[in-house]
Amino acid sequence: MTAPTGKVTCDITISADGYSAGHNQTEERPFGDDGSDGSGDRLHAWMFDTPDENRAEIDQLGAAKAFIMGRNMFGPVRGAWDRQWNGWWGDNPPFHAPVFVLTHHAREPQPMDGGTTFHFVTDGIEAALAQARASAGEGDVAIQGGATTVNQYLTAGLIDELRLHIAPLTLGAGTRVFEGVPPLKLEQVGSRSASQVTHVTYRVLR
Amino acid sequence: MTAPTGKVTCDITISADGYSAGHNQTEERPFGDDGSDGSGDRLHAWMFDTPDENRAEIDQLGAAKAFIMGRNMFGPVRGAWDRQWNGWWGDNPPFHAPVFVLTHHAREPQPMDGGTTFHFVTDGIEAALAQARASAGEGDVAIQGGATTVNQYLTAGLIDELRLHIAPLTLGAGTRVFEGVPPLKLEQVGSRSASQVTHVTYRVLR
Repeated sequence: MTAPTGKVTCDITISADGYSAGHNQTEERPFGDDGSDGSGDRLHAWMFDTPDENRAEIDQLGAAKAFIMGRNMFGPVRGAWDRQWNGWWGDNPPFHAPVFVLTHHAREPQPMDGGTTFHFVTDGIEAALAQARASAGEGDVAIQGGATTVNQYLTAGLIDELRLHIAPLTLGAGTRVFEGVPPLKLEQVGSRSASQVTHVTYRVLR
Repeated sequence: MTAPTGKVTCDITISADGYSAGHNQTEERPFGDDGSDGSGDRLHAWMFDTPDENRAEIDQLGAAKAFIMGRNMFGPVRGAWDRQWNGWWGDNPPFHAPVFVLTHHAREPQPMDGGTTFHFVTDGIEAALAQARASAGEGDVAIQGGATTVNQYLTAGLIDELRLHIAPLTLGAGTRVFEGVPPLKLEQVGSRSASQVTHVTYRVLR
């Protein structure tokens, strides 16, 4: 009997029109033009304004044993690592697990407080997933975002469970989940409404 | 005291990536390339396969006292009315009320069985809404679709309540709700999950 492996999950908060971030990301505005101050407040109000009623979904965000994210989700630095940037999350990021950052520019692993270590993967999404799976053991691997990274994994058929958190606004432009992804058959395995968000969980069928 | 007027509502079934129909609509395939036989089966399975658990939402679809739809939702005929086409719905359409069809080509009203009459409006979306409101009295007016028509009304700020029925599949291409619509502030006034669909109702804020 082989050890069970975890799922590859993806939680992503989107507007009603499917955007996870607006255009024009900057260091001060990691979610770009989202119609607020750019901090992602409006998309993510469900987490910050109504945490009690969304406790299960919030807890789920941190449950994976390894995470994968795109370079733009990690930070605003483009091209070579010509300045020290350790993510948007301060000294003790909320992952408490290995985080594999997709990049074209090699960099040494960056340990942080609280068990998070950022690893920089330069040989593609499948290599990153293999490393994340090895780290996670029987735990889940979470594709953390942004949407461009999620779409690459969806296109490659590598996400098992997609959890959309749909916020009550539209952005009209930006980075959109499913953009360029071939048609998917999904099984709705869960759906729950809260006051400011609708949570929908899909299993991606092969 | 003036008589109350009804709401302008819009119910639309969309894929998880926001499409209400695929490309390539034909008479045999009114929903175009939706990954099935083109009949819209997969998008609308929630209505046909699980009507009991979606009774409230199905009943709501027919509750308006007047309807507005785009030319492409009415039928596959393009350009002049060079053949008799009275909609996809047979002799007794499910509207049982006036239906205002947006078109560039004038045509006499077409009465049908069961109380439906198709009226053809050539002077734009606001004129169609004025006529529909006059017909509906205190009842609601429903913007019936397709997405192109819905998007015109959303852009003009003329929809009060938008009811999305999100089906578990993606289409990857087609006609998408919110496409080209400026950012909207929405209030989530209801959200309910059923086994094969998630229903979300938004009030469009001014």
